[in-house]
Amino acid sequence: MCKLYLDDFHVGQKFGSDRLRVDSDRIKAFAAEFDPQPFRLDDEAAKGSFFGGLAASGWHTAALTMRLIVTSDFKPAGGVIGKSNEISWKKPVRPGDELRIESEVMEVRPSKSRPEQGTIKVCTTTFNQNDDPVQVLVANLVVPRRPEGSHHAHGE
Amino acid sequence: MCKLYLDDFHVGQKFGSDRLRVDSDRIKAFAAEFDPQPFRLDDEAAKGSFFGGLAASGWHTAALTMRLIVTSDFKPAGGVIGKSNEISWKKPVRPGDELRIESEVMEVRPSKSRPEQGTIKVCTTTFNQNDDPVQVLVANLVVPRRPEGSHHAHGE
Repeated sequence: MCKLYLDDFHVGQKFGSDRLRVDSDRIKAFAAEFDPQPFRLDDEAAKGSFFGGLAASGWHTAALTMRLIVTSDFKPAGGVIGKSNEISWKKPVRPGDELRIESEVMEVRPSKSRPEQGTIKVCTTTFNQNDDPVQVLVANLVVPRRPEGSHHAHGE
Repeated sequence: MCKLYLDDFHVGQKFGSDRLRVDSDRIKAFAAEFDPQPFRLDDEAAKGSFFGGLAASGWHTAALTMRLIVTSDFKPAGGVIGKSNEISWKKPVRPGDELRIESEVMEVRPSKSRPEQGTIKVCTTTFNQNDDPVQVLVANLVVPRRPEGSHHAHGE
């Protein structure tokens, strides 16, 4: 897969991903390490909670989304390197859910102060197997410009 | 520790945390699961990257911050339940760093449509052992209002 420079991105460009299944054990293991609230760790406690049953930590959904982004065809040269994000959770992620993403480039901005790089704004929606959005992430990513004299991607 | 209802929060209220150490093995293990980019997994690849050395995934920092929040004295009744967030990374988190947080309540808003709950906006800055901010998180959290007739916190 080609590495993409700032010059290779354009508004409206889209990227998809494979699916990734989330199971109950991983939901509880992530929560034990990072979000140890009783309703994340125990099925009975979860039933009486805001979520009405076991649901993945939002930060687990965010981390799984990062995996889906990094393993997709979205391959900025230099890596997927975030500066700032807006993230919102739309629906609980339940044991057995299968997540996938759809990403769309919203802005491409060369840097004024650093001519060798720029920023792209990418909106990534994470869907479950019923095509319900579970998370929306708007990320500002640092992307290098194509070095002068190097070849364009895709043989252009 | 008391559980805090919406009525117990006010603008300017602050919460701190203990410290949590991040080591190289956990940085690589988190990355292997959620952010498998070569510069997150391998010291040599990291040296030639944007970060100039191994650095934790931003989502790892976010997850560690959640742990620091959940295990602090910040205890909303019903749990720490986020709806939407703005998150930005200020500085790489390196192996051996010790993280802690400072949280401050920025807004307290009763819900118009759901009188039994409201939203608080909380700014959480994550610092390393040198007191450099490594992450700033502005989170909107759902918090229940105190049930009518129940006792106030702190015997007020």
